[in-house]
Amino acid sequence: MSIKKIFLDEREMPSTWYNIVADMPNKPLPPLHPGTKQPVGPEDLLPLFPMALIQQEVSMERDIQIPEPVMDAYRVYRPTPLVRAYGLEKALDTPARIYYKYEGVSPSGSHKPNTAIAQAYYNSLEGVKKITTETGAGQWGTALSYACQLFGIECEVYMVKVSYNQKPYRRHIMNLFGSQVFASPSDRTHAGRTILQRDPSNQGSLGIAISEAVEMAAADPSTKYALGSVLNHVLLHQTIIGQEAKKQLEMAGDYPDIVIAPLGGGSNFAGLAFPFLKDNLTEGKNIRCIAVEPASCPKLTRGEFKYDFGDTMGLTPLLPMFTLGHDFMPPDIHAGGLRYHGASVLCSQLLKDGLIEAQAKQQIPCFEAGVLFAKTEGIVPAPEANHAIAQVIEEAHKAKESGESKTILFNLCGHGHFDMTAYQDYFAGKLHNHELAQEVITGSIAGIQNLQPV
Amino acid sequence: MSIKKIFLDEREMPSTWYNIVADMPNKPLPPLHPGTKQPVGPEDLLPLFPMALIQQEVSMERDIQIPEPVMDAYRVYRPTPLVRAYGLEKALDTPARIYYKYEGVSPSGSHKPNTAIAQAYYNSLEGVKKITTETGAGQWGTALSYACQLFGIECEVYMVKVSYNQKPYRRHIMNLFGSQVFASPSDRTHAGRTILQRDPSNQGSLGIAISEAVEMAAADPSTKYALGSVLNHVLLHQTIIGQEAKKQLEMAGDYPDIVIAPLGGGSNFAGLAFPFLKDNLTEGKNIRCIAVEPASCPKLTRGEFKYDFGDTMGLTPLLPMFTLGHDFMPPDIHAGGLRYHGASVLCSQLLKDGLIEAQAKQQIPCFEAGVLFAKTEGIVPAPEANHAIAQVIEEAHKAKESGESKTILFNLCGHGHFDMTAYQDYFAGKLHNHELAQEVITGSIAGIQNLQPV
Repeated sequence: MSIKKIFLDEREMPSTWYNIVADMPNKPLPPLHPGTKQPVGPEDLLPLFPMALIQQEVSMERDIQIPEPVMDAYRVYRPTPLVRAYGLEKALDTPARIYYKYEGVSPSGSHKPNTAIAQAYYNSLEGVKKITTETGAGQWGTALSYACQLFGIECEVYMVKVSYNQKPYRRHIMNLFGSQVFASPSDRTHAGRTILQRDPSNQGSLGIAISEAVEMAAADPSTKYALGSVLNHVLLHQTIIGQEAKKQLEMAGDYPDIVIAPLGGGSNFAGLAFPFLKDNLTEGKNIRCIAVEPASCPKLTRGEFKYDFGDTMGLTPLLPMFTLGHDFMPPDIHAGGLRYHGASVLCSQLLKDGLIEAQAKQQIPCFEAGVLFAKTEGIVPAPEANHAIAQVIEEAHKAKESGESKTILFNLCGHGHFDMTAYQDYFAGKLHNHELAQEVITGSIAGIQNLQPV
Repeated sequence: MSIKKIFLDEREMPSTWYNIVADMPNKPLPPLHPGTKQPVGPEDLLPLFPMALIQQEVSMERDIQIPEPVMDAYRVYRPTPLVRAYGLEKALDTPARIYYKYEGVSPSGSHKPNTAIAQAYYNSLEGVKKITTETGAGQWGTALSYACQLFGIECEVYMVKVSYNQKPYRRHIMNLFGSQVFASPSDRTHAGRTILQRDPSNQGSLGIAISEAVEMAAADPSTKYALGSVLNHVLLHQTIIGQEAKKQLEMAGDYPDIVIAPLGGGSNFAGLAFPFLKDNLTEGKNIRCIAVEPASCPKLTRGEFKYDFGDTMGLTPLLPMFTLGHDFMPPDIHAGGLRYHGASVLCSQLLKDGLIEAQAKQQIPCFEAGVLFAKTEGIVPAPEANHAIAQVIEEAHKAKESGESKTILFNLCGHGHFDMTAYQDYFAGKLHNHELAQEVITGSIAGIQNLQPV
């Protein structure tokens, strides 16, 4: 048996992020101003983001240098291990070789600090005093809380109410890192109050929480806003994952046939897959890159590609993306990080161009997959990661049927230590699958013309 | 700056455990039979333990081979990283070089699987169908649950009631790994029922939970019992920690002046310290090895060295150890793993012989230390580990005062992901220090003669 855990020396950590825009055959369409419906310029985004991040958002450069203070902060947990899933392979009796990149070793227990640290750093350079943000399951809020205290910035988090109540430990860890956390919709913002007037028992969504965080940032010049996924610069920062994984697979003498990651906004998937997609785009390789979403929030497999808002209230620029409509309210599944109505512009364009694949998975089989993984690999996965594992198991079964020894790589994007109530619900038979009726989906985006602003 | 995380290749993992008995100047006194008060023979222990573990319990061999299936299971998470605490050093402005061995990467999030895996393996070899055990904070119960399902053994856990209620996530993860978990004292055993009759609101202790688990094991020939600390074979299995740390410090070109670990029963401390103590005992080195206990359960600093029972009801053999008395009820501190009335025979003998040091720490400054560590090093420590960190900070301050560049190594024995309610209580000002009156301590051991059986 070869070695199980492949560690990359921290002196071998990649020193640039990979910007896939440079290699995309069709470049992404521009975001549009919510008022004028014209392409937004950098100045339109300045109330929300520091200039350095706006420049990364529109950059065409292939390789972007990682600043030394960010590299330093990365070294607290990076490079993360690449692990051969011998235990899972044996349980599945598959000829497939399964590897996972384990991002759960980070301070927040997921991949999110990769961009949180970069964003906090660039904000600190431009004198920002406070950052507002939204969080779903709490992974992003925790990461930003950690990053902000590293660079001496205040942090205010709007946490989707259903997760706020389901996952109290997540709130506590954000508090530990010095952040203020509010259940969203809250009564602190116009957006939150409007939603609560319409529906006092509203359980929140990422779209609503974004509206609240954006509103607070826009109202104060020394406050900026940070997004944990969706935007180009966020996806860019995550590409350190896939670049490390490439080096580590090379150390193991292997190369992937299939790369799999969950997709909520897109940064998890992009982080692992884009550096491999590069090989497809520039070297004629043919790796299958599969984004896995929840069947209860199926923008990739059942949404439409069009301009839509990033938030529920329509405060953000319009983005060209696969969407279920910005007012889509996903069911209260435990994979809170995947409850977002749209997919990032870059992932959407790549899917539209047939360069990546998408799959939707139901909640209960995902937990089943997660439990098998925990027992065989000794790591309890985050519910988001379970979506990738369910797909991996499917591909491993196919490899067994066809007798092909495929190499499968997936992103174990985080641990589930703060999600144990979800597992308890699973064992108690309290979880549900959510098969959405077509009318729920099309109803929510009625009136939105394809590739036209709403 | 040198590298932060020192990874040992898994092919370099030590293949033997270190048995300090071989090098102790005064060998440990024998355990006595609770009925006859005569030294127990192997056959006395057979109802509770498999013969292979009984042999390790009395072995005088210096190096004991780790079986290959145990090595394989270790490779899921071992070797664990050794990390240079640059962030903490900077925050303390100390010339000390601080390293921690991070055992939180294991399946249960602490060092406990090092012995759980070995114990489950030896039990499986001897055809054992079920193992019963106790658990305090839940770290041990989780580790044994994971290990038992690896080797196809049923697992039944008696969890100290205060922790059962404080730490529900711990129960859920034990359930995930397939164990049955009961709050102790329970009504399933004679021991539990007796305690509950006396005091229906009894919050439990490790001593009571041990009584329950031992009683269940003794009643069924295909059921054995496993202990997570205290016994010689348990300490033995943990010595892989210190052996790895030695190799990793050597890779970093360093050698410790001070080695620090928390002490509950002793396996945490022994695991890290014994391989370094070996250098004191056999090579004339002079490393200070400091065991840190809670001020609310101060057997090392305020207990007496004498024969006492390992459990509350007096079912176990009598052990020669530093003890607060087997019916001592420690306050409900959050470091549940340190709420045990006695210290292992080996640690007790070493302390008595002046070969190790002991310190007691209050709860609130320990949490203060843990929060500083989390912010500067990106890992939320288990409350048990915070005791070591508080001592590390004290030694780092001393180094600063004296201007000496000491090398300090400590055992970051686990993460605190399942202990977030404790941190929340800390921030909410709900935690207490517990200064025990002398009469509480001496009262509880009244009538016990020094080195005489009770």
